[in-house]
Amino acid sequence: MSPVAPPAAAAPDAADIEAAAARIAPYVRTTPVLAVEVDGRPVELKLECLQVSGTFKARGAFARLLAAREAAAAERRPAPMRVVAASGGNHGIAVAHAARALGLRANVFVPRTSPRAKLDRLRALGATVHAEGDEYAQAYAASRTFAAEYRALESHAYDHFDTLAGQGTLAREWLAQSPSLDVLLVAVGGGGLIGGIAAWLDARARAGERVPRLVAVESEGCPTLHDALAAGRIVEVAPRGLAADSLGARRVGELMFPLAQRRVAEAVLVPDAAIAAAQAALWRLARVATEPGGAAAFAALASGAWRPAGDEHVGVLVCGANVDLRALADTVDATPA
Amino acid sequence: MSPVAPPAAAAPDAADIEAAAARIAPYVRTTPVLAVEVDGRPVELKLECLQVSGTFKARGAFARLLAAREAAAAERRPAPMRVVAASGGNHGIAVAHAARALGLRANVFVPRTSPRAKLDRLRALGATVHAEGDEYAQAYAASRTFAAEYRALESHAYDHFDTLAGQGTLAREWLAQSPSLDVLLVAVGGGGLIGGIAAWLDARARAGERVPRLVAVESEGCPTLHDALAAGRIVEVAPRGLAADSLGARRVGELMFPLAQRRVAEAVLVPDAAIAAAQAALWRLARVATEPGGAAAFAALASGAWRPAGDEHVGVLVCGANVDLRALADTVDATPA
Repeated sequence: MSPVAPPAAAAPDAADIEAAAARIAPYVRTTPVLAVEVDGRPVELKLECLQVSGTFKARGAFARLLAAREAAAAERRPAPMRVVAASGGNHGIAVAHAARALGLRANVFVPRTSPRAKLDRLRALGATVHAEGDEYAQAYAASRTFAAEYRALESHAYDHFDTLAGQGTLAREWLAQSPSLDVLLVAVGGGGLIGGIAAWLDARARAGERVPRLVAVESEGCPTLHDALAAGRIVEVAPRGLAADSLGARRVGELMFPLAQRRVAEAVLVPDAAIAAAQAALWRLARVATEPGGAAAFAALASGAWRPAGDEHVGVLVCGANVDLRALADTVDATPA
Repeated sequence: MSPVAPPAAAAPDAADIEAAAARIAPYVRTTPVLAVEVDGRPVELKLECLQVSGTFKARGAFARLLAAREAAAAERRPAPMRVVAASGGNHGIAVAHAARALGLRANVFVPRTSPRAKLDRLRALGATVHAEGDEYAQAYAASRTFAAEYRALESHAYDHFDTLAGQGTLAREWLAQSPSLDVLLVAVGGGGLIGGIAAWLDARARAGERVPRLVAVESEGCPTLHDALAAGRIVEVAPRGLAADSLGARRVGELMFPLAQRRVAEAVLVPDAAIAAAQAALWRLARVATEPGGAAAFAALASGAWRPAGDEHVGVLVCGANVDLRALADTVDATPA
């Protein structure tokens, strides 16, 4: 989503992700795994949709804010009192949640076109909401101007070292819970989540451990990583479709892309109809409520867009549940059982 | 709900519950626990709402059907091919689910007043649905006549030894996951669930283990166990209110009552408004969808109707999610954040 790429930096290593895990532990949940059967095959669901703030984004948001606070203390600078984010979606909600928990002020920039429900949600979390411009790029630009003026901490939605380290804590937790998984299916938007997971897997693989294969899943309308991996470089896409509100970045992050090139074994695209069917299936199968982006990884398996080889033990990340319950009811009703 | 009490029998002991756990393991899920904070206090939610069939009832249904099949084999009798249940609710759904998984025919008796959605759900699970009489007692009587005529296996909703043993597997699983809990909050309808849990706690206590205190939670409109414990004998109540469809038995089971007298430390009543607020709170706090009965135990804690002593570590059983998503959306919208 960012029109201006942040400065390049090295990827988080195992120690960075361990440090992030220790920092965020008092504020986030260990989310459970649930073993289910899908077409007679055992599958493990990692229920990150039960995370505080409703998505995995809380891990990255807390990691970013807490690392900045520690850095300020180490350098005997005043701690940041204000955090700025540009996002009307899950990142904005996570930053608002984390800021409130840490006693910081959150200023969240969103396009003027954002639905009122999202703005109300951010305000209910104590954030000051700025509706600026007609599209995301303008809200983002306004957030940068504001941050510079108020010397506020910027929390990028995905392309920051500490954010990646925070999302990487999910992989660390998951592999400890489910050490026998052969494959992980993970949805991709801007790539912060799969980038953090790739960083952890990469670090463990370099330490000589056997790690699961990593499969990226995107909707056909948001093929940011798929197209970048095919092109061998980051490319711009125009996000559209059902999952665009959570998976709809224009480009993957600079920091995650080399990690994805090393660690993402396959990049799978699923049609919107498969995502809606996956939302209905997760509800019927296990009473798990999801938003479209949260069900995308499951959609790859359930639709057959991706098929496991032999008796591979498959883990599916269910990464978000910030869904309107009426919209989910409509989706379930529209999907034959 | 049963107008005719089944013959009295001994309560399941630890070996019975272990045997039930081994029988049902291929068919049910180990449901996860989720540590959350409620008003700054750590609380563990046992998410049995993610169980197959949407509620804990699957444990008892599988335990009953599998024990009957084993007994027939041991006595060289033909295995039962048909199971009969009287329930338009969660027990009927669980029996239909279990029968389908085990290749049995399910005949489910419901009052003619049952909503079409419930009948459709039972039929989608492969059950033959019989709408008989204007209220539950008549449907139950018809189910008994049918079972006698077809020599079918009866699966009572709660007052059967194997059903209690099946529900007891939940306590065995939970204490293994969360050995440090001081108190368990559990919702009560006919008492099969809390009876099975009490049986496991009683067996472990007699073996010299420290076991958590057991707190029963009922809605004010369905005080079946509360009133029975107060009277010192099983009494009839007229169930009403929000949670009556899942908690609305007329009387607790004969088998569970002595267990409850020994093991239930407190019986708490919560108003319907507290249950609705608990459904909204579980959704907002952790994106956990529940039906009213499934949220009743949490309601006791969240409303303050029950308060922990000191720093007791509290476990809350979230026992069912067979909720219409639109009804849940209405409940959430009607509850201030």
